[in-house]
Amino acid sequence: MEIEKYKIEEHNQAASAAHKRAFDYISGEVKNAQAIIDKLAAFQVAIPSWALGTGGTRFGRFPGGGEPRSLEEKIEDIGLLHKLNQSSGAISLHIPWDIPKNASHIKALAAQHGIRFDAMNSNTFQDQPDQQHSYKFGSLQHVKKEVRQQAIDHNIEVINYGRELGSDSLTVWLSDGSCFPGQLNFRQAFQHTLSGLQEIYAALPSDWKMFVEYKAFEPNFYSTTVGDWGQSLLYASKLGPKAYTLVDLGHHHPNVNIEQIVSLLLMEGKLGGFHFNDSKYGDDDLTVGAIKPYQLFLIFNELVEGMDARGMDHATGLGWMIDASHNVKDPLEDLLQSVEAIMISYAQALMVDRKKLQEAQESNDVAAAQEVLQQAFRTDVRALVAEARLRAGGALNPLGVYRAEKVREHLIKERGLKTVATGL
Amino acid sequence: MEIEKYKIEEHNQAASAAHKRAFDYISGEVKNAQAIIDKLAAFQVAIPSWALGTGGTRFGRFPGGGEPRSLEEKIEDIGLLHKLNQSSGAISLHIPWDIPKNASHIKALAAQHGIRFDAMNSNTFQDQPDQQHSYKFGSLQHVKKEVRQQAIDHNIEVINYGRELGSDSLTVWLSDGSCFPGQLNFRQAFQHTLSGLQEIYAALPSDWKMFVEYKAFEPNFYSTTVGDWGQSLLYASKLGPKAYTLVDLGHHHPNVNIEQIVSLLLMEGKLGGFHFNDSKYGDDDLTVGAIKPYQLFLIFNELVEGMDARGMDHATGLGWMIDASHNVKDPLEDLLQSVEAIMISYAQALMVDRKKLQEAQESNDVAAAQEVLQQAFRTDVRALVAEARLRAGGALNPLGVYRAEKVREHLIKERGLKTVATGL
Amino acid sequence: MEIEKYKIEEHNQAASAAHKRAFDYISGEVKNAQAIIDKLAAFQVAIPSWALGTGGTRFGRFPGGGEPRSLEEKIEDIGLLHKLNQSSGAISLHIPWDIPKNASHIKALAAQHGIRFDAMNSNTFQDQPDQQHSYKFGSLQHVKKEVRQQAIDHNIEVINYGRELGSDSLTVWLSDGSCFPGQLNFRQAFQHTLSGLQEIYAALPSDWKMFVEYKAFEPNFYSTTVGDWGQSLLYASKLGPKAYTLVDLGHHHPNVNIEQIVSLLLMEGKLGGFHFNDSKYGDDDLTVGAIKPYQLFLIFNELVEGMDARGMDHATGLGWMIDASHNVKDPLEDLLQSVEAIMISYAQALMVDRKKLQEAQESNDVAAAQEVLQQAFRTDVRALVAEARLRAGGALNPLGVYRAEKVREHLIKERGLKTVATGL
Amino acid sequence: MEIEKYKIEEHNQAASAAHKRAFDYISGEVKNAQAIIDKLAAFQVAIPSWALGTGGTRFGRFPGGGEPRSLEEKIEDIGLLHKLNQSSGAISLHIPWDIPKNASHIKALAAQHGIRFDAMNSNTFQDQPDQQHSYKFGSLQHVKKEVRQQAIDHNIEVINYGRELGSDSLTVWLSDGSCFPGQLNFRQAFQHTLSGLQEIYAALPSDWKMFVEYKAFEPNFYSTTVGDWGQSLLYASKLGPKAYTLVDLGHHHPNVNIEQIVSLLLMEGKLGGFHFNDSKYGDDDLTVGAIKPYQLFLIFNELVEGMDARGMDHATGLGWMIDASHNVKDPLEDLLQSVEAIMISYAQALMVDRKKLQEAQESNDVAAAQEVLQQAFRTDVRALVAEARLRAGGALNPLGVYRAEKVREHLIKERGLKTVATGL
Repeated sequence: MEIEKYKIEEHNQAASAAHKRAFDYISGEVKNAQAIIDKLAAFQVAIPSWALGTGGTRFGRFPGGGEPRSLEEKIEDIGLLHKLNQSSGAISLHIPWDIPKNASHIKALAAQHGIRFDAMNSNTFQDQPDQQHSYKFGSLQHVKKEVRQQAIDHNIEVINYGRELGSDSLTVWLSDGSCFPGQLNFRQAFQHTLSGLQEIYAALPSDWKMFVEYKAFEPNFYSTTVGDWGQSLLYASKLGPKAYTLVDLGHHHPNVNIEQIVSLLLMEGKLGGFHFNDSKYGDDDLTVGAIKPYQLFLIFNELVEGMDARGMDHATGLGWMIDASHNVKDPLEDLLQSVEAIMISYAQALMVDRKKLQEAQESNDVAAAQEVLQQAFRTDVRALVAEARLRAGGALNPLGVYRAEKVREHLIKERGLKTVATGL
Repeated sequence: MEIEKYKIEEHNQAASAAHKRAFDYISGEVKNAQAIIDKLAAFQVAIPSWALGTGGTRFGRFPGGGEPRSLEEKIEDIGLLHKLNQSSGAISLHIPWDIPKNASHIKALAAQHGIRFDAMNSNTFQDQPDQQHSYKFGSLQHVKKEVRQQAIDHNIEVINYGRELGSDSLTVWLSDGSCFPGQLNFRQAFQHTLSGLQEIYAALPSDWKMFVEYKAFEPNFYSTTVGDWGQSLLYASKLGPKAYTLVDLGHHHPNVNIEQIVSLLLMEGKLGGFHFNDSKYGDDDLTVGAIKPYQLFLIFNELVEGMDARGMDHATGLGWMIDASHNVKDPLEDLLQSVEAIMISYAQALMVDRKKLQEAQESNDVAAAQEVLQQAFRTDVRALVAEARLRAGGALNPLGVYRAEKVREHLIKERGLKTVATGL
Repeated sequence: MEIEKYKIEEHNQAASAAHKRAFDYISGEVKNAQAIIDKLAAFQVAIPSWALGTGGTRFGRFPGGGEPRSLEEKIEDIGLLHKLNQSSGAISLHIPWDIPKNASHIKALAAQHGIRFDAMNSNTFQDQPDQQHSYKFGSLQHVKKEVRQQAIDHNIEVINYGRELGSDSLTVWLSDGSCFPGQLNFRQAFQHTLSGLQEIYAALPSDWKMFVEYKAFEPNFYSTTVGDWGQSLLYASKLGPKAYTLVDLGHHHPNVNIEQIVSLLLMEGKLGGFHFNDSKYGDDDLTVGAIKPYQLFLIFNELVEGMDARGMDHATGLGWMIDASHNVKDPLEDLLQSVEAIMISYAQALMVDRKKLQEAQESNDVAAAQEVLQQAFRTDVRALVAEARLRAGGALNPLGVYRAEKVREHLIKERGLKTVATGL
Repeated sequence: MEIEKYKIEEHNQAASAAHKRAFDYISGEVKNAQAIIDKLAAFQVAIPSWALGTGGTRFGRFPGGGEPRSLEEKIEDIGLLHKLNQSSGAISLHIPWDIPKNASHIKALAAQHGIRFDAMNSNTFQDQPDQQHSYKFGSLQHVKKEVRQQAIDHNIEVINYGRELGSDSLTVWLSDGSCFPGQLNFRQAFQHTLSGLQEIYAALPSDWKMFVEYKAFEPNFYSTTVGDWGQSLLYASKLGPKAYTLVDLGHHHPNVNIEQIVSLLLMEGKLGGFHFNDSKYGDDDLTVGAIKPYQLFLIFNELVEGMDARGMDHATGLGWMIDASHNVKDPLEDLLQSVEAIMISYAQALMVDRKKLQEAQESNDVAAAQEVLQQAFRTDVRALVAEARLRAGGALNPLGVYRAEKVREHLIKERGLKTVATGL
């Protein structure tokens, strides 16, 4: 399945009058419209290979058909998204789900779709059929040296796959932790984990980054060995300059102020990457912006302010990735919605009048500070986002084109109704 | 302090070009713009008398100066707000803080400002200097009959004050509950409370409503005797047709889906009123829309849909009130921001394409349903809200005028810097 | 695998000196020791068929070997537990996982083990291979009549299986809800669900009960159609006298006071049954008493007080069941620990000096009320629980005997290492 | 008011038969009973001066009478507690509430009661009548240098008062934070705060410790500038070896695993002190052990294990303090209950079979690990705690003696019914 360029242009043509109206209006109102459009165009969000299939819960999974059956088909799916929105030009692979049998072939295929290889992800939270030791009681934290070694070796193997493909970062998410009081010696679990991470870190190519992802709970329900930003920062600080904390929006306790964490990690030079999704209860893995769009904006507000303060390039300074799981939507539609929500929040954050905000802060004018933020958030910037897409050769309305071109129906026809992509 | 009409007009004049641009654009894009404007104009949000002073916490209170020293000055403050936004034409009184010494004088004053008397609020969560029995261990739930009777009598007294002023509803918020396991027999506490509410209900004029407000916790930290919507509904159902549940946005446990509660209470014909505010942790009493504006929109989405389904008038079908406490902002500025946030959410909810939404729901098209809601939420409707204000004789930019006219400075000059309004 | 009676006696013999010491001491201290022992002996907790295998999460499952492969083997496992603790004399079946091919054979087998058939459980949260309509978007709430009908028919089929086996209650847990704002019309979802429940209710034998179980979230992450006790009570009240609310300890929002809910449901005559487990975050399904044993005691305190106030028989007045999922423990060991925790809490609740507690409450003596509860909770009642088991023919130390007799090793030898029981 | 020694002995005499029975039994069962008793005797918990009066909430305060009116009376109250339980031999002062007019007199008075001066507490969360700059918008985080300087000076003044009295530590709890998005630049707030703490740190005597206390929320409801253990550790690490993190049990988000935090801070050598209380929702400041006694035990389990691993002395290695607020109980009774709960948890933690626990952990025997912990927790150790008190000259039943001797009535007679102690 491929959407031909002229098809997108046809759809853009049909939508152009409405778009022009909206764009003319908003570009007249927003001072730095052109600069925003340029930054939007440069901003790419990596798609994780496992978000291309229908997700599930322990209670069941309801696949939707036409899911990718191979790494090649995953790349094709992301290529399709990228063709539509010109903002999904990267893929994040998961080993062992995505072991490339022929790396040069895979690289060529990705290049053809304009897709680069973002962070590699290891998996020590599940047992694979041929695996010698079980991760039932953890991986890097495990009381037995041989299990820890197996997990270290696996991560090094993942780095090697990534090297072949041109990735330059490794995301380590450990589900390690405990389900019951007494199960773990917390200090020992920390020390084992640190020592394992150090061995993996030692195997990291010199230009790579390592992202230490934290998560408050699930699948362990009493403690998690990399459980919050404090723990992740502790690991990353002890590891060295190539180690960073990765923030996943769904990995916090209720009510936690994530934007402050983002700001402080940037202050420490230790924010490495971001997993976007949304949630109401826990790691619900819902569509980005579907539940708390203002929080997303506030996070982008800190990202923009904090990266600018350090002179970081927005597009390349951090690893940007979606990490969601789409139980009741077509996964590709969901990803289009997620990327759109990210772009809108980013555009609004770029619109924030920093000078006015700083003045309000310096004079403790809390109401004025709120006005500045809400002025940006309440502005309808969708036409700016669409214009950025248009100029980059994408679709004014990616979801509309996706539906009009009956992409899912085509994929089902090609791949069958019963396909189930690797993932959760 | 009064803002003269011509001053508002001057400010409107100065802002009219920008407004016209925005309004022309948005009224061309939104189908039912005129109907929305009419509904916005009819929608009035009551201001609680206790929100006019600076709020505090148990850790301290930092008054800002110029706070109203009397019921008359409170009415003047709300008159001022109403003059600016034409949407605050009601006051909600609290007894004993607002006992009218001369009811007809107070009524005349309110009428002069275009303000009516919304729900009356009783207070059995504090001890007054001249009070015979203490509410330390509750009021209507109390184990001693004389304390319960005192609380009943107080509520009836509140009704009587309300009658004199032309109010037609009583909000009963009880802080009753317990701080420690074992302190209460839950059933007995419920039965005492029910029985007290029945006596108050019996004293209610035939055209009055009683709102039973629930709250999850604080000031009691183990149990609350009207603790959630289930308990409130149980009381209201046992009381009779004039009793309703009142929803305060800040009175829930973390993560609770408030919009679903709203929908179900409307279904049962038992939603009576609303206390608007915002919060991140508990009953934080922050400015409406300051933390979770999308949640506010989703709630309005249910309100509009559910009231329409029952043929209820939006403006009069429910009691609408702000209940916030403004610790670090000028209280009047905060109220202007709160009303603005309410109007924006209401306008967006009115914009929702109900037909499309229903079609999406009927076909389980979850992505499309989200698009319908976000299409409304992402639209910048501020010009519609401003236009409604303008047509009603208010200010295009109430907060702007408030600041330009140096209202707070004037109030401080009039009333002094050390005034502290009654409240929390 | 069976543990022979004499083996248990041998172990009891070895443990008898220590037990005698403890029992002599505690029975001298506790006034109503004999009455407590009698009540403990009468109290039976049903084991759900799905708790006999290793549970999992969406991230993986790590089976432990020797899991039951059939309904017969499940009954044998519970028989084994019951032989050890004499408190697990009931099984709760799940359809379709436990469809009895030969009901009279199954009944005979259960009788042989002293096990009766507790509440039947239907499953409309997963799709079965041969199922016509999918529950992806709900079952009783579904927008399509044919899906609702399928779910109704399934529940009636479950009732019929239960009739054959001698069960007398149906637990309906619906995962129905939504993952995204806009997905559902909440009122319609409620009405469809109610209407489905009414049809199922109509098919209920006259001496049966229907338990309407609520759950705050998961697997739906935005709303749940039977989401809290308020909603469940609303359904149960509209259904009629045979319908009750079922409380599962893990199905609440953070910080909710469950013991108050229990008390109020008993007050309304609408508490029907109980699912025991423990949790820190959500429906973690951990061993009963492993995280919050004091909460468990407080719940039992309300159960005992509330049931006594209504003259209900403790053993038969409510449906008692464990509902846990044992990811990192041997499931049978976990169930032994769970039953022990339940018995301890029940014994402590029976020990509460009700007269003193009432006096403390009547005089608002909060510190004294706490003393009364903690006096019971801090007492080591394990010897009373062991004595009750001993007198009933069970083991003084069930877990000890289980381990000494190498039950799991035997089961693995019999059934194999790779068996995976049906369940989550 | 003083309880004479012979009175305590009389009460002990009356209770001695029951105590002997319990003690004989438990000391026969617990291996290291003598060692536990010795450690209990050495363990002293500081009482904060502000816990001696009735606490309140923003909704009201209900004083109970007889509250201490001066620092002298506060010391007398703690002397009274210490006489009864022999475990409260320290006071934690708060400036400006407890400014000693005559330090040597105060020291002599304290010495007379066997009380030493624990950590000093500064107050930059409230404005004092004579204060030049307001802390409305924070203290050390404040945008204005003069406000920060005032807060720094105040802390140094607190150190100086402490020096005079013989204290050796300063607890800095800052309420600094923000109520609304945009109010603060998080990085700047952090940097200002760090810089202020550095100046205070520089003024610290060489043998002093500084405790940096964190709190998730309240009185600020959007962000807190020392909001979690990660932030506190960051400050403490940047400050130097005399700076430590202080853990208050009520200062966390819902569901956070506090015992793991304790373990990791000990691992880092950065745990400095502890504020005991209990809570269900937020910083509820309830009696220690009143809500989650098992959590308290698990925390002590980590404290004992972690301090032993570092060779720290239990009694002096960390700062132990109660920080509660007694809204509905007699404050002194509440403190007696709190200390008792602490002693029980400490005794149970000392009882944990460390060797067995470690073996269980090393073999991933999760069920056995739970058995080890619960074996300790379920044991009734009250007689050990009472025996330790008895040997130290205290009362077998402190609360009983307090009530029998009508202490509160005496205090009211002495001090009056309307006294209100300084505090929250």
